[in-house]
Amino acid sequence: MPTYKAPVEDTMFLLRDVFNIARYDNLPGFADATPDTIEAVLSEGGKFCEEVLAPLNQIGDREGCKRATDGSVATPKGFKEAYKQMADGGWIGLSSDEKYGGQGLPFVIGAAMNEYMSSANMAFAMYPGLTLGACRAIRIHGTEEIRNTYLPKMIGGQWTGTMNLTEPHCGTDLGLIKTKAAKQPDGSYKITGTKIFISAGEHDMAENIVHLVLARIEGAPEGVKGISLFVVPKFLPKDDGVGERNSLICGSIEHKMGIHGNSTCVMNYDGATGWLVGEENRGLPAMFVMMNDARLGVGIQGLAQGEVAYQNAVIYAKDRLQGRSIAGVKNPEKPADPIIVHPDIRRNLMTMKAINEGGRALMIWIALQADLLSRSPDEKTKQIADDYMGILTPILKGVMTDLGFQNAVMAQQVFGGHGYIAEHGMEQFVRDARIAMIYEGANGIQALDLVGRKLPKDGGRAITAFFNEVSGFVKENEADEKMKSFVGPLGESLKHLQGATMWFMQNAMKRPDNAGAGSYDYMHLFGLVAIGYMWAQMAKAALAKKNGNGSAPQIDAKLMTAKFFVERMLPETGAHLKRIQSGADNLMDMPAEAF
Amino acid sequence: MPTYKAPVEDTMFLLRDVFNIARYDNLPGFADATPDTIEAVLSEGGKFCEEVLAPLNQIGDREGCKRATDGSVATPKGFKEAYKQMADGGWIGLSSDEKYGGQGLPFVIGAAMNEYMSSANMAFAMYPGLTLGACRAIRIHGTEEIRNTYLPKMIGGQWTGTMNLTEPHCGTDLGLIKTKAAKQPDGSYKITGTKIFISAGEHDMAENIVHLVLARIEGAPEGVKGISLFVVPKFLPKDDGVGERNSLICGSIEHKMGIHGNSTCVMNYDGATGWLVGEENRGLPAMFVMMNDARLGVGIQGLAQGEVAYQNAVIYAKDRLQGRSIAGVKNPEKPADPIIVHPDIRRNLMTMKAINEGGRALMIWIALQADLLSRSPDEKTKQIADDYMGILTPILKGVMTDLGFQNAVMAQQVFGGHGYIAEHGMEQFVRDARIAMIYEGANGIQALDLVGRKLPKDGGRAITAFFNEVSGFVKENEADEKMKSFVGPLGESLKHLQGATMWFMQNAMKRPDNAGAGSYDYMHLFGLVAIGYMWAQMAKAALAKKNGNGSAPQIDAKLMTAKFFVERMLPETGAHLKRIQSGADNLMDMPAEAF
Repeated sequence: MPTYKAPVEDTMFLLRDVFNIARYDNLPGFADATPDTIEAVLSEGGKFCEEVLAPLNQIGDREGCKRATDGSVATPKGFKEAYKQMADGGWIGLSSDEKYGGQGLPFVIGAAMNEYMSSANMAFAMYPGLTLGACRAIRIHGTEEIRNTYLPKMIGGQWTGTMNLTEPHCGTDLGLIKTKAAKQPDGSYKITGTKIFISAGEHDMAENIVHLVLARIEGAPEGVKGISLFVVPKFLPKDDGVGERNSLICGSIEHKMGIHGNSTCVMNYDGATGWLVGEENRGLPAMFVMMNDARLGVGIQGLAQGEVAYQNAVIYAKDRLQGRSIAGVKNPEKPADPIIVHPDIRRNLMTMKAINEGGRALMIWIALQADLLSRSPDEKTKQIADDYMGILTPILKGVMTDLGFQNAVMAQQVFGGHGYIAEHGMEQFVRDARIAMIYEGANGIQALDLVGRKLPKDGGRAITAFFNEVSGFVKENEADEKMKSFVGPLGESLKHLQGATMWFMQNAMKRPDNAGAGSYDYMHLFGLVAIGYMWAQMAKAALAKKNGNGSAPQIDAKLMTAKFFVERMLPETGAHLKRIQSGADNLMDMPAEAF
Repeated sequence: MPTYKAPVEDTMFLLRDVFNIARYDNLPGFADATPDTIEAVLSEGGKFCEEVLAPLNQIGDREGCKRATDGSVATPKGFKEAYKQMADGGWIGLSSDEKYGGQGLPFVIGAAMNEYMSSANMAFAMYPGLTLGACRAIRIHGTEEIRNTYLPKMIGGQWTGTMNLTEPHCGTDLGLIKTKAAKQPDGSYKITGTKIFISAGEHDMAENIVHLVLARIEGAPEGVKGISLFVVPKFLPKDDGVGERNSLICGSIEHKMGIHGNSTCVMNYDGATGWLVGEENRGLPAMFVMMNDARLGVGIQGLAQGEVAYQNAVIYAKDRLQGRSIAGVKNPEKPADPIIVHPDIRRNLMTMKAINEGGRALMIWIALQADLLSRSPDEKTKQIADDYMGILTPILKGVMTDLGFQNAVMAQQVFGGHGYIAEHGMEQFVRDARIAMIYEGANGIQALDLVGRKLPKDGGRAITAFFNEVSGFVKENEADEKMKSFVGPLGESLKHLQGATMWFMQNAMKRPDNAGAGSYDYMHLFGLVAIGYMWAQMAKAALAKKNGNGSAPQIDAKLMTAKFFVERMLPETGAHLKRIQSGADNLMDMPAEAF
C-alpha cells in the first residue's frame, strides 16, 4: 500500500526562508499566525492526512460510490467518519471568515493543508474543496441572509457544497446553458434542467448539500449575458436545520477513469426551489469567483498527486534491488544494487522532485497573493496581487496539472511492471491525476484564458510587472558568483518568454489564430520561467541559510535540485519559442476532412 | 462506443510510394506479394479487425479475465469465438513459414496487420502476438522435433504461446532468476518455480498453451550465464493432440490498470515437464530472439493505440459544437462551431497525426529490414538490415510507446470531461497504452540498450551507417526548392544527434554514468531524427505523386503534416542535446537519503 508523509518541512522552508511570512504580521489573521504556530497547525493537519485520509485512498478507489434507486449515494467505507473527524477538527474552515465560524488563518495555510489532503486522498479532499469554493461565491455575492443561512453550516461541515455548470451539450461554452429558472411570487425561483459531471453532487456524509447552479431566467438574453447563479439546496433550510426535500435528484453517477471515491453525478432539477446569488444575468462573473478558487485548488491537486507519487517512487527505488551501478558495485553483500544507483532512475526522481518543490513554491506564492488581495489595506499591493493572481492562476492550473500527471506517470514507471498492478497504488495516482488536466477548464482553455484575456488585460500591466520582477531579480543577483549559474539561464528563458509575448503582439492582431496556435506552448514556457524564478529564489534562500547556520543536508539538496531544474528543464523554453513562432499555418491549413 | 478504421490506404502509400516494395520481388515470399495482393490482404484483414475485434474491446475491458479456483481462466465474452475466426482465417500465420502451415508472406505484411489488430483490440492481439514470438524462438533454436511438434499447432491457432521471464524479485535483472530445472533420465527437465506477469498465461481460447520458460539447470553458473530456455506445455503433446496435464498452474491473475482482456498470470511450476530449447546455459540469447520480436510488437502497440485514439478524437472534434472560431464564425446556422476550428484542438490532432504516420513509416521500414535480414541472399544487405534492426528496435519500442501513450492522453483531452468517462472508451486507450512503456523492457532499459550496447557495437558501424544514410538524403535533396524546408531542419536535428553521439564518445569512457544520464534524451532525440527522416521521405514521395497524377487531398495532407512535424516537433532535438550535455552531476550528486 502506498504511504504518504506531509512535506511540512518544505512548506515551512518556503514560508519562513523564501517568502518570509513574518513580514505580513500587520495583516488581519497573520498576526496570530507566527511561523511556529503555522508549523504546529500544519504538523497536526499533516498527521490527520497521513493517518486518517491516506489509508482510505485505495479503499475509495476500489469501492467507489454507489447510487441506490432512490437517488441516494453511498460513499466508500470510512469516508463518512473521516469527514466528521475533519469537520470536528475545524480543518474545513481553517482559512474561513471567523464571522461564519472559520478560524480566520491566512489563505496560504489553507492552501498548504489542501495540498496535504489532496496528496493523501484526492477524491476525499474534493468534498471540502468544493464546499469552500461554494462558500466563497456565497460570501462575495450572496445577501447577508443567504450568508448566515449557509456559511456556518458549510464551514462547520454539516453541509457541503457543489458547483453546477456543465450540461450534456455544453461545458466550455457556458453560453449554451439551457437550465431554466422561473421566478416565483415569494422571490424564489423554480429551477429545471439537467447538469452533468457534478462532483460531490450527492453523498451520505452531510445532512444537506448546497448546489450553486447556473441557469437562465425566463426571458433573459441569449448567451453568457443571460445566465444567473442560484443557490439550490438538497433540503430547504429550516430553523437551524433542514426541512422539506427539494425537487432535485441524482439521476446517475458516472463511471470514471479515477477519483472513484468522489461521486460524480448527473443532477436532475425538476422545479427545484432556489434563490438568486448576486444579480440577475450576472451569474457568470459570480461563478468565476468560485471557478478561480477551484482552478487554484485543481492546480494544487496536480502538485499533490505528483508529490505522493514521487514519495512512493523514492521508497521503491531505494528498496528494489536490480542490476549493478555502472560506476561500480554499491551493494556487494546483496545480489544487486538498489535501482536508485541508476542514472535514468534518478532522472525520473530528480524531475519529479524539481517540479514538486518548484510547484509548491509557486502555489505558496500565489496563495500569498490571494491573502494580500483580500487582506492588505494598500490599494497598490492589492492591485499587484490581483494582477498576479490573474496571470498565475491559469499557470498553476494548466502547468502543474500537466506536470503532476507526468510525475505520476514517471513514478509509476520507476515501479516497472509492479506500477501497472493495482495493489501498489501507483496506477491510481495516474488515473486520479488525469482529471485535473480536464476539469475546471481543460488545460487548453487555461492557455487561451492566459493568452487571450490575461495578457492583454489593462494594457499588459500584469505581464509587464512579472517581467520587471523577474528581470530585476536576475540583475540583482547575476554578479553574485554563487547565484550566477541559476539566474543566468533564468534570464535566457525569460528572454524566450518576452520574445514569445512580443511575437503575439506583432502577429495575433493580424491573425487571431496565431495566438491560439501558440497558447499552449506559451503557457508551458511561462510555467517554466515562473517555476525557474521560484527555484532561483529558493537557491538564494538556501545560500543565505548556508552562510548562516552552516550546511544542512536539506539545504544542499535544494541547491542540487535548483541546478537540475536549470540544466535539465529550462532548456525546453527555446523549443517552446520556436513552436510559437511557427505560427498558425501548420495547424490551420489542413482541411477538416483531411484529418 | 469508439470506432476504428484500419488505415490501409496509408500503409499502401508507404509500401508502394515510399519504400517501393515491388523492388524486393526477387526475395522469397515477395514475388507473390504484389502491391495489389498486399492491398487485398490488408483490406480483408482490416475488415476483420474493424468488425470482429474492435467491438470486443470495451467488453474485454469491462469483463476482464476471471480465474476459477481450479486455476482455469475465462476470457471475456466473444474472445474465444473471435480467436477461432482469426485462426480459421489464417491470420495468425500470415508471415509464418509455409513449412509449418504459415502463409509465407513478408513479415512487413504481418506487422501491418499487427498494427490493425492492436488498434482494434490490444488485449486480444496479445494472444496471437505472444504466440508468434514463441514460434520464432522455437523455429530458430528448437530441434526439428520440437518445431514439428509445436509450430503447426501454434501457427494454426489450436495452441498459443507465452514467454516466462519475470519472477517476483527480478524483471530487468534476469541474472537473479531462481526457477530451477532438473534433468531427467529421458532428457526432459522438471521445472520448478514461480513466474509473474505472464501475459496470456492461462485462458480458455486454445486447447493447449506453450510456455517458454527461463530457468536455471542444477549446477549451472550464477548470473545470466547459467540460464537456459525450456518449452513447457500446459498439456504434454500426444500423437496429434494433447495428453497428460503438466504440473503447472495459474496461481492468480493480476488486477491491472488496463489490458483487462488479456490474462496476466502468476504461473506456478511444480516439477513441470519441459524440454530444452537451444543449448544449456544459452537461454538468454535464445530468449532475446523472442524479446526482440516482442519489442517490435510492443512498439507497434504504442503506434496502434495512438492511431485508434486519434481517429476517435477527430470524429469528436468534428462533431462537438462548442465556442466560435476566433477567425470568424464557421457554422452560423448552429449554436456553435465544431471544436476542430480551434487552433489548440488542431495542435492536438496534428501532433497525433504526425506521430502516427511518421511512426507507421518507421515501423514499416524496420519490418522491411527484418525481411531483408531473413530473406535476402546478399550478405552485405543482411548485415545492414541486422545493424539497423539493432539500433531501431529500441527506438520503435521506447519512443513509439511513449508517444503512443501521449497521443492517447491527447485524444482523451480533446473529449474534455467526456474523455474521463468510461463509456466513451478514450480512457481505456490511455490505460491500455500505458503498459507498452513498461513491459518487454521498460523504456529506460530500451534507452540503455541503445546507448550502452547498440551504439558501440562493431565500432559504431550501425549508427555510422544511419548517419550516412540520413545525411546523404539531406545532401541529395537540399538543392530541391520543394524539399529544402524539410531536409534543412532534418539536417539540423541530425547534427544535434551527431553532437550527442560525439559527447558520449568523449565523456562516457571517463565516467560511465554520463551515458546513463543522457540515454533517455538520446533515445528520444534519435527517435525524432528517425521519424523526421521518414517524414522527409514521405514528403518526397508525395511531391513525386503530385508531379505525376496531379494533386489528391491525401497528398497535400501528407505535405502539410510533414511541415507540422518539421516546424513543431523537430525543435525539441536542441533541448535534448542540452540535457545530454549537462552530464551526470545533476543526477548523481544527490545523496540517496536526500530524496
